[in-house]
Amino acid sequence: DATVSVQGGIITGVDTFFLLFAGALVFMMQSGFAMLCAGSVRQKNVKNIMLKNLLDACGGALGFYTIGFAFAYGGQVDDKSFIGTGNFFLTDITENQEYAGWFFQFAFAATAATIVAGTVAERCKMSAYLCYSVFLTGFVYPVIAHSIWATGGFLTAFRTGYDDHFRGMGVIDFAGSGVVHMTGGTTALIAAVVLGPRRGRFYDEDGNPLETPHQFQAHSVALQILGTFILWFGWYGFNPGSALVISSEGSAQVAALCAATTTIAAATGCVTAMFTDTIIDMMATGEASYDLTMAMNGALGGLVAITAGCSVVQPYAALIIGMIGGWVYLGFSKLLIKLRIDDAVDAVPVHFANGMWGVIAVGFFSDPKLQAIAGYNITSSGLFYGGNGDLFICQIVAVAWIVAWVTVVMTPFFFLLKLAGMFRVDPLEEEVGLDISHHRGAAYDLTGPNKDDVEELME
Amino acid sequence: DATVSVQGGIITGVDTFFLLFAGALVFMMQSGFAMLCAGSVRQKNVKNIMLKNLLDACGGALGFYTIGFAFAYGGQVDDKSFIGTGNFFLTDITENQEYAGWFFQFAFAATAATIVAGTVAERCKMSAYLCYSVFLTGFVYPVIAHSIWATGGFLTAFRTGYDDHFRGMGVIDFAGSGVVHMTGGTTALIAAVVLGPRRGRFYDEDGNPLETPHQFQAHSVALQILGTFILWFGWYGFNPGSALVISSEGSAQVAALCAATTTIAAATGCVTAMFTDTIIDMMATGEASYDLTMAMNGALGGLVAITAGCSVVQPYAALIIGMIGGWVYLGFSKLLIKLRIDDAVDAVPVHFANGMWGVIAVGFFSDPKLQAIAGYNITSSGLFYGGNGDLFICQIVAVAWIVAWVTVVMTPFFFLLKLAGMFRVDPLEEEVGLDISHHRGAAYDLTGPNKDDVEELME
Amino acid sequence: DATVSVQGGIITGVDTFFLLFAGALVFMMQSGFAMLCAGSVRQKNVKNIMLKNLLDACGGALGFYTIGFAFAYGGQVDDKSFIGTGNFFLTDITENQEYAGWFFQFAFAATAATIVAGTVAERCKMSAYLCYSVFLTGFVYPVIAHSIWATGGFLTAFRTGYDDHFRGMGVIDFAGSGVVHMTGGTTALIAAVVLGPRRGRFYDEDGNPLETPHQFQAHSVALQILGTFILWFGWYGFNPGSALVISSEGSAQVAALCAATTTIAAATGCVTAMFTDTIIDMMATGEASYDLTMAMNGALGGLVAITAGCSVVQPYAALIIGMIGGWVYLGFSKLLIKLRIDDAVDAVPVHFANGMWGVIAVGFFSDPKLQAIAGYNITSSGLFYGGNGDLFICQIVAVAWIVAWVTVVMTPFFFLLKLAGMFRVDPLEEEVGLDISHHRGAAYDLTGPNKDDVEELME
Repeated sequence: DATVSVQGGIITGVDTFFLLFAGALVFMMQSGFAMLCAGSVRQKNVKNIMLKNLLDACGGALGFYTIGFAFAYGGQVDDKSFIGTGNFFLTDITENQEYAGWFFQFAFAATAATIVAGTVAERCKMSAYLCYSVFLTGFVYPVIAHSIWATGGFLTAFRTGYDDHFRGMGVIDFAGSGVVHMTGGTTALIAAVVLGPRRGRFYDEDGNPLETPHQFQAHSVALQILGTFILWFGWYGFNPGSALVISSEGSAQVAALCAATTTIAAATGCVTAMFTDTIIDMMATGEASYDLTMAMNGALGGLVAITAGCSVVQPYAALIIGMIGGWVYLGFSKLLIKLRIDDAVDAVPVHFANGMWGVIAVGFFSDPKLQAIAGYNITSSGLFYGGNGDLFICQIVAVAWIVAWVTVVMTPFFFLLKLAGMFRVDPLEEEVGLDISHHRGAAYDLTGPNKDDVEELME
Repeated sequence: DATVSVQGGIITGVDTFFLLFAGALVFMMQSGFAMLCAGSVRQKNVKNIMLKNLLDACGGALGFYTIGFAFAYGGQVDDKSFIGTGNFFLTDITENQEYAGWFFQFAFAATAATIVAGTVAERCKMSAYLCYSVFLTGFVYPVIAHSIWATGGFLTAFRTGYDDHFRGMGVIDFAGSGVVHMTGGTTALIAAVVLGPRRGRFYDEDGNPLETPHQFQAHSVALQILGTFILWFGWYGFNPGSALVISSEGSAQVAALCAATTTIAAATGCVTAMFTDTIIDMMATGEASYDLTMAMNGALGGLVAITAGCSVVQPYAALIIGMIGGWVYLGFSKLLIKLRIDDAVDAVPVHFANGMWGVIAVGFFSDPKLQAIAGYNITSSGLFYGGNGDLFICQIVAVAWIVAWVTVVMTPFFFLLKLAGMFRVDPLEEEVGLDISHHRGAAYDLTGPNKDDVEELME
Repeated sequence: DATVSVQGGIITGVDTFFLLFAGALVFMMQSGFAMLCAGSVRQKNVKNIMLKNLLDACGGALGFYTIGFAFAYGGQVDDKSFIGTGNFFLTDITENQEYAGWFFQFAFAATAATIVAGTVAERCKMSAYLCYSVFLTGFVYPVIAHSIWATGGFLTAFRTGYDDHFRGMGVIDFAGSGVVHMTGGTTALIAAVVLGPRRGRFYDEDGNPLETPHQFQAHSVALQILGTFILWFGWYGFNPGSALVISSEGSAQVAALCAATTTIAAATGCVTAMFTDTIIDMMATGEASYDLTMAMNGALGGLVAITAGCSVVQPYAALIIGMIGGWVYLGFSKLLIKLRIDDAVDAVPVHFANGMWGVIAVGFFSDPKLQAIAGYNITSSGLFYGGNGDLFICQIVAVAWIVAWVTVVMTPFFFLLKLAGMFRVDPLEEEVGLDISHHRGAAYDLTGPNKDDVEELME
């Protein structure tokens, strides 16, 4: 009757609104990445990294509009499939409210792409960046999204009928510690290895390793912190928004829990990473100092780590996941330096390492009661909740699958770019910086007015 | 019964919430404009432009509270009228949820005003700016909003009973390519002509035209990009929010479509403008360089262009509208330089030229099925969908009406300001910059600590 | 039946969504404070203040997760109580959607803490800051929140059955001019007094008072204005969000009104403060100049002032409250200087003085019709609406209670910190700045590329 039909309209409306809200916040993360990355690089490469971040969003939109969305979710059916095969160019959309879903998913794809920008900053060619970011949002990311989030994916937990399913369940990666952050993070790691470190970072002019790696100073802490806050803010779209709907008791519970666990994990990640670093440094130097980079990246590490399990773990578990996330960041960051792998903004420790930790953590902490509310009708749960190990295995398999897929596809891709001479700017351009060599001048001009004029005015 | 009454409450609640959400995002665009404009000017005028942007928001609130809202929508009736005549000072509001509508509309009015700030930057007197921005939000803009968006407006498409209506339909300007952006853009263009270019931009000290116009360098690309991202983010309130409600199937479809078309047009505008510029420049210089200003303004041009039709065009059309939007920006920007009209932030090409293109584009691409969902119960559609030309004519008439009205009202206004000596700062103040001459000092003080103290500490 | 049950789900969903939206905006205010404070200090203390703001958010999350929420709202019962006693560590949450409430309230607690950061900037030790901010969010603030906003609080207006209640009603502090802003502001004032002024602000090297206090220049107006806009934006979560629900006619009316009154008060506060300052200055110097700090802090003062009454006053009253708010800011700022109390960002005039004015203003302007819609079922109203004085007395008592409680608890706390030598950095560190002495280097490195390299490239 009429009441029920009006009710249906309200439900559609509220759920669409929720996706628009969450999508807008996730989109805003693009500017968070832009500010964080730009703040982290040297003054001579600010324009370049900013432009990469802006083009990312655009390339992500076009890649996901044309083929990415189709490969990820197109013509969703229950039959197992490697990739989707419908809705190319957003055609054959049956109900226009589905455009909200596309918008939300586009913002996720763009996030995966933008993670790489920071790692390869200050030395990667613009053309290489454009190639890989369209490739990533158009194909590499959609395959992973399909495998884990589409009903036909081989690791999905959102399937009707689990009989023929991987260990009868699939993986829990609620908002994408694996799907988004590991995909971006693994790509970043491979790119960093193939591309090599920035000049003067680990080796001197003659190619001999430096005793102490040279730490390039971030050019603006203000931009870094602004970026961090914007990212944290955007995460309130990323994680609660992954409930996708909010018009029922259950979905409201899921979204609310996500907001709380996200907050707690970010806080502990920040505090753990920074104070652990302070203590380590104090033992060496005898003086207490507080490092902003540790605090920022610790918070981001905690956020990445809670992303997979935000809907299925209790607040205390979020506390632990974030805490360990801070250490994971710290340890992996130091490991990269030891391996002489140069990550200009530490995106690999934040997104790859903590993405992995986040997916695995679900295998320990996932609470069956929360799983049920979040819509995971599966037969296993976290090891600390008496799970039979099936979920844990699924989580490990997901990690392995993401690493393997990205590695197999992106490694030859980056080597081809390198062979073609399209990957890295030439040494002199790198010394001068990309802003002057590729973008028509420096990012700032802080010169004030002519002194004589000022004096004349003052008279 | 009770269920229905509760349902009515939910509907009111959801729709009010939607307006508050969208209004907040549109308000945030004020800071986007502030950052974009401030980043685009020279260091000596940063405070001035920032203050203008802040006062804009305040003046807009006061102008729209006192008379603007009343003129635009006050005492809405179906009888044709030039301006509204009720609800001055927000009195006689029957239902308090209508305040959400005022809030949303205020944010639009403030946007129209703030567009001008950038164009006249670095030389316009503060008092002139205050005068025109209250005049614009209190009277000029409301007349246009009334004519197109109020039920009594002579070009409105939101009328019950279209019999005596202009070509039986009215214009489609869903979120205001014309109403907001052309109004601001036309004002900016007139102001730029009357005010004249900045010293040293097109003419030397003696008033002789320079062979090559002098390009003043933007003082901070970081602020420009931040502003661009914030504006893009805010557009997700501007365009989907113009559905005004979200509690029904149809309105949800409209808002969702708007988010998708907005995204796609922004992306193509960015890509088209930047790469076209790169190619043109490469043909001249032989070297590829990528210009951030082109990318930013291209994206904004695409956003302005899709604003009129975001709810009535298909995604593929958004792609084309954005693409052409990028070229429109590029071409109009070069045209202004050729005409020696000085626009400090290229707001005229972005808002005026693309506003016009956006309104006209609806005449080509408007899809009758989408029109029906968006609530346009009219008898014509876009030329590419077999429209009989009536809609196209309406769109052209709207463009002409906006240009004519703004020109007729603002031209004498600016000339009077000029005659009264209230429009432009004196030459020495312009050389020194407005920050020192009008705002008690420079915007930045980046001096670090005393070297001796640092050395003493380090010992 | 089913329809009703679905309806219940929608209501829960919409209200939860509303809290998540509002909470995210309030959280974003953290970055507003960070930018505003960082912009206001000298270049040598940027990192320090940014880190304090980031740790604030984290400390607030942890303090409010562990004990703060429990003390404020835990195990809410109607029996009068000093503090709450349940839900420590977010345990015993019966319905998961309550996590959204926690998230929203955490953001408020973090706001109260962060207000202090700016006042004590440039001289306060990191350890002191950490101690007090955990103490504030974990205990001091929760006691006040409990007394005014929990059903068991002795001044609450949200009680079922008012018979044994303070003057039969309790205080109206809708979104926390008192609970949040006065709590933070009073703490800031006490801290400033105990800590003493920055070196060179009011006294010379030998401790003799300067004839004219030394005004340290803000290092970046761009950050200040960005922060101001973000705060204003966040206020659309702070004030409308304090309706807590939006799924009914009444709550929608409340939230909508809040958006309008908030906007109007911000605008008048800005305009009043700045132009009054311009006039005063013009009478002294003969020249008109416009001060950005006045405009920003005036807007923020207006926002703080309307926070208590945003849901119970008419728009015209918001205009007056904001206008007076601008003057309150201006006067209190000058008073602090006269008293030689050094507030590095003028947070005390904005939050303490205008918080007080906001609570008192309700006693004059509160409209009984609006009170009823906002859920205040009380027997008195504002003096200008024929109130019998009971409400006015409640408002005064609330002001006195907040000042008294914070003073009694925080004064000894800060003195103990001072005695323990934990409160203030040593003089040389202060001269050098906290960034170099505690955070491993300066916040900016704007050095461009090597000139020789640039020349080589250009050839």
